[in-house]
Amino acid sequence: MEYQTAPTWDQFNYWSYRHHDLGLYLDVSRMGMDDDFIDRMQPQIQKSFDDMKALESGAIANPDEDRMVGHYWLRQAALAPDKELTEAIQSSLIDIKEFTHAVHDGNIVNQEGKPFEHVLIVGIGGSALGPQFIADALGTSADPMSIHFIDNTDPDGISRVLDRLENELSQTLVVVISKSGGTKETRNGMLEVRQRLLENQLSPASQMVAITGDGSQLDQVAVSEGWLKRFPMWDWVGGRTSVMSTVGLVPMALQGLDIDQFLEGAAMMDAGTRQENPKDNPAMLLALAWYHAGCGRGMKDMVIIPYKDRLVLFSKYLQQLVMESLGKKEDLDGNEVFQGLAVYGNKGSTDQHAYVQQLRDGIHNFFLTLIEVRKATDQTPFEVEEDVTSGDYLQGFLRGTRAALAEGDRETITLSVPIVDAKTVGALIALYERAVGYYASLIHINAYHQPGVEAGKKAATRLLELQSKVIAAIKEDGEGSANSIAVKVGADPEDVYHLLVHLANNRNELEHELRSRPDQDVFRYRS
Amino acid sequence: MEYQTAPTWDQFNYWSYRHHDLGLYLDVSRMGMDDDFIDRMQPQIQKSFDDMKALESGAIANPDEDRMVGHYWLRQAALAPDKELTEAIQSSLIDIKEFTHAVHDGNIVNQEGKPFEHVLIVGIGGSALGPQFIADALGTSADPMSIHFIDNTDPDGISRVLDRLENELSQTLVVVISKSGGTKETRNGMLEVRQRLLENQLSPASQMVAITGDGSQLDQVAVSEGWLKRFPMWDWVGGRTSVMSTVGLVPMALQGLDIDQFLEGAAMMDAGTRQENPKDNPAMLLALAWYHAGCGRGMKDMVIIPYKDRLVLFSKYLQQLVMESLGKKEDLDGNEVFQGLAVYGNKGSTDQHAYVQQLRDGIHNFFLTLIEVRKATDQTPFEVEEDVTSGDYLQGFLRGTRAALAEGDRETITLSVPIVDAKTVGALIALYERAVGYYASLIHINAYHQPGVEAGKKAATRLLELQSKVIAAIKEDGEGSANSIAVKVGADPEDVYHLLVHLANNRNELEHELRSRPDQDVFRYRS
Repeated sequence: MEYQTAPTWDQFNYWSYRHHDLGLYLDVSRMGMDDDFIDRMQPQIQKSFDDMKALESGAIANPDEDRMVGHYWLRQAALAPDKELTEAIQSSLIDIKEFTHAVHDGNIVNQEGKPFEHVLIVGIGGSALGPQFIADALGTSADPMSIHFIDNTDPDGISRVLDRLENELSQTLVVVISKSGGTKETRNGMLEVRQRLLENQLSPASQMVAITGDGSQLDQVAVSEGWLKRFPMWDWVGGRTSVMSTVGLVPMALQGLDIDQFLEGAAMMDAGTRQENPKDNPAMLLALAWYHAGCGRGMKDMVIIPYKDRLVLFSKYLQQLVMESLGKKEDLDGNEVFQGLAVYGNKGSTDQHAYVQQLRDGIHNFFLTLIEVRKATDQTPFEVEEDVTSGDYLQGFLRGTRAALAEGDRETITLSVPIVDAKTVGALIALYERAVGYYASLIHINAYHQPGVEAGKKAATRLLELQSKVIAAIKEDGEGSANSIAVKVGADPEDVYHLLVHLANNRNELEHELRSRPDQDVFRYRS
Repeated sequence: MEYQTAPTWDQFNYWSYRHHDLGLYLDVSRMGMDDDFIDRMQPQIQKSFDDMKALESGAIANPDEDRMVGHYWLRQAALAPDKELTEAIQSSLIDIKEFTHAVHDGNIVNQEGKPFEHVLIVGIGGSALGPQFIADALGTSADPMSIHFIDNTDPDGISRVLDRLENELSQTLVVVISKSGGTKETRNGMLEVRQRLLENQLSPASQMVAITGDGSQLDQVAVSEGWLKRFPMWDWVGGRTSVMSTVGLVPMALQGLDIDQFLEGAAMMDAGTRQENPKDNPAMLLALAWYHAGCGRGMKDMVIIPYKDRLVLFSKYLQQLVMESLGKKEDLDGNEVFQGLAVYGNKGSTDQHAYVQQLRDGIHNFFLTLIEVRKATDQTPFEVEEDVTSGDYLQGFLRGTRAALAEGDRETITLSVPIVDAKTVGALIALYERAVGYYASLIHINAYHQPGVEAGKKAATRLLELQSKVIAAIKEDGEGSANSIAVKVGADPEDVYHLLVHLANNRNELEHELRSRPDQDVFRYRS
């Protein structure tokens, strides 16, 4: 069939996938793919299916880190390659439910014997984005516990969260999540929360919960201080695919959301995304559509616009899942490929009043995924005009935007789900997890490591080590410039300048006198 | 000077701009610009300055809509081209303050004589993004009123906001913002809120406030129903630059934030960004850096990462300001140019644990703007290690990420501000407003219209009109397929299919029987 982004009715029918049991529909008819493309891709497609089968059977799918990649087992424990893993997954589910029930039923209470009413999650990246997305997508004002997040090492941001909880701190369960147990942002958040609890005459250990790898730094702290509870996190689950492990399930269960349905939706989608006919496999269809749009080199950004307030964080969740998985320098043979797929978006129709002007008229450097939620509301619909509801408008704007983009030959994918509930959200996550896995195989990269993240951390550590030397040097000299201190400590003057400016803004003893250029500035130590 | 993204100390000094009074520093030394580039751009630079002067003097800078572009006058009313405009701006400020004081002091109260404690903003796009950014950036738990937003036509999303306010509805001031007064999402939100107030035996008019153009549809409703208050919105202020008009200032003042300092920061930045030496002008430096990075064609995405929780919505605000202004099909001479500049980002160091892997290692289709807030906290800093605070880590991660990106020759801009307060936020917005204006002149486009937005609205209207015909047709036939109904109503079968599916999910009387392909599906009308 010929390329055109506004398809004929036949093309729509031909390129429509529908998962009947989940009620999830995928329409890639406006991506300009044809059967010749699928045929040409067939060897890579088959390789992708083979890679995925090996991964699901417990192969070392992340060779750099010498690890299995087991997130698919989390929703179907029997699939795990050995009995111990299966039992570990199953027993963690029982453990989560028992703990949650005890908290909700008032069998686990705070120091004063009062029930816990709030959950404060401390985590970052894979240990925050999933729980944040789910909490916002599925939360209601009737949830048994309210949920809050600290996901950075910003002391002002941390204070703001704690200030809002100020009168409720004693009834707040603090859940610290770090797979490695050594993430500095999370450690700092944990220390700041602990300090605040102590200032409020509370005993941190009696209200803190750890989710981390066995024997990690965080685990050791939790053991030695006797924290209320520890949950395991396994090295065969990557951070960005950890939302169906303890990392996502503990917050979800505490908030009163249905973890069984969440896992069930994912398991159902997994079954659908194992089909080896690409046109019957929504994850492979997505991967192929992405490949086609960006020539397998990420040349077009993936814009994600769900037409539903509850799904506004999905694109932020996918930013990590997609970009951290696919943004790689080398392919599996060590060739430099500089791969990736940039993701952004918020929600419709709101984004139509922000940047859809550019999508419609401007640079053609993207393809758009629209997500429809078919049931507009579970309350009695209110008519804003005769026989027309707000939800009819929402649907009209989605289809209207799609039509307007097609006029300009902009590619769109439309994903349609019946409702936003635990099962559907589980299915959506599972769909994109597998699409990312397939796409990585199509472009021959390792989707399961993140080697580039270390460089920034190392550079930060070097700067923090330099900080104490800079403080000592300026203290000794009393006064100096970035140049003079740099010579003294044997470091780069720009690094020293930034450290001096930072210190002068945060330490009373240091003063910064601004002159006409940074190298002329004077810094003074006040004793 | 030679291109390199990791600059020498000399290059850093050479390309550093510092606004001493605002304490705002801009470092473009890692963008690879050299003096030859500035020289080559000189004719366009001069044209940009001339265009801006004409705009500020009241020229028709938005020729398509035959409008002046006056957002710079909002913070310095004396600059407006005639006395009436100056007085209109000044009197609106007095009006905002009087109204706000009356609300805060309990002189304007609800039906029961109780004070208003919450503000609910109903608006979308330019009537929501600015207020949302400011509320989040500057809000504290000590604010006199809490602020909430409805910014979509999602009935479930609207209900969720109203459910959370359920017990406080009578003490909620509802501020409906629509410049044109005809935006459907905002009208629907307003109608749904009004309905909820009525269901709670409240009188909507006594707690509703309109911000809209004189004589608009919304204005007419507010007048005829006798709403509590109306504020003016002028046609010479574009939606995406309206945050310093009543649109942004009313919510800000109600929240208890300092609108004078906000305007003052913008006015100070305006003075700085009128300098005609490009190297002394931070807005021109930004525009030139963007131009250099993307070859004046938007070939690289602008990623924005503020290292501060309070600034997390800045990139969402800039998505509209930048993309709606610059994403244009035609230049000022009517040539097809398909311009634009894609913007995304959240906050650091959080994003380092999400997608910085791709920025560091992957596809080089972006440049990064890091925003530093020099003072980490206004509370006593807490040490997470000996002599090291959470804020030191935050700063270390910012500099570390920048260094790691430089190793891979990725361009970065660093913007440094002393603190997040009303003045600084005003200055940041003013900086980007003018950078966008200059950049638009450099690439010879109209930054002040949004012609592409209409197409989606028109297509949506067409679909909503079709909806009633489809309902009538299926009601008459009792049963049918998308094809049969399409023939009957004389419409595209795919449009009809989507409408039928939507209706079946939201109207009890319609049933959808899924078969193997969409064109085989059966729809039934149940009487």
